[in-house]
Amino acid sequence: MVSGDGDIVSVLQALAEPTRWRAVELLGAAPLRAGQLADALHVTPPAMSKHLRILLQAGVVTDERPPGDARVRVFRLRPESMATLRARLDQLQAHWDEQLASFQAHVRERTDS
Amino acid sequence: MVSGDGDIVSVLQALAEPTRWRAVELLGAAPLRAGQLADALHVTPPAMSKHLRILLQAGVVTDERPPGDARVRVFRLRPESMATLRARLDQLQAHWDEQLASFQAHVRERTDS
Repeated sequence: MVSGDGDIVSVLQALAEPTRWRAVELLGAAPLRAGQLADALHVTPPAMSKHLRILLQAGVVTDERPPGDARVRVFRLRPESMATLRARLDQLQAHWDEQLASFQAHVRERTDS
Repeated sequence: MVSGDGDIVSVLQALAEPTRWRAVELLGAAPLRAGQLADALHVTPPAMSKHLRILLQAGVVTDERPPGDARVRVFRLRPESMATLRARLDQLQAHWDEQLASFQAHVRERTDS
């Protein structure tokens, strides 16, 4: 297994669920509390907590308690957790572009000769 | 739901499994037959078929029968299926960089005054 595969698969598994993907999209715009996410995504607070726990475990989000209010947790995206995935998807695209260019050069050579 | 979310989640679900992610990595280097993938990934042919069916349904790979041998199917990556996911991850990173820059500017202003 290529190094980093386990991390990429954990991040993919965290993102690969409709409510969690929409939570990530919302957190991409601004940090939010669990209650705000639950309201926006029309899920119950316990269901939201479960989704947020999975996102926290994969490192996709962080939580912090604002000073002066220990009851509240604010969730924030950690885009760097998705950097390895982004880099691998870019590499796959680049490899594929090379394969295509090499195949097209091969076809041109056969057509010209 | 943002348009295209369903497609992104389907692609994420197809990729979010260790054997399928490794199949995608291998197909990123070169097209391969189902048997070659099963051997390389140490899974049985039926298990490989199931994984390939999921990748086909999400549009992550295509299959074709080489002329002259109808029994063989060659699988090939379709990196364009992951283009929307790549674009969204890039946007999330860009938004986050903006948020960070704006926060840092805010801190500098407060420190300077």
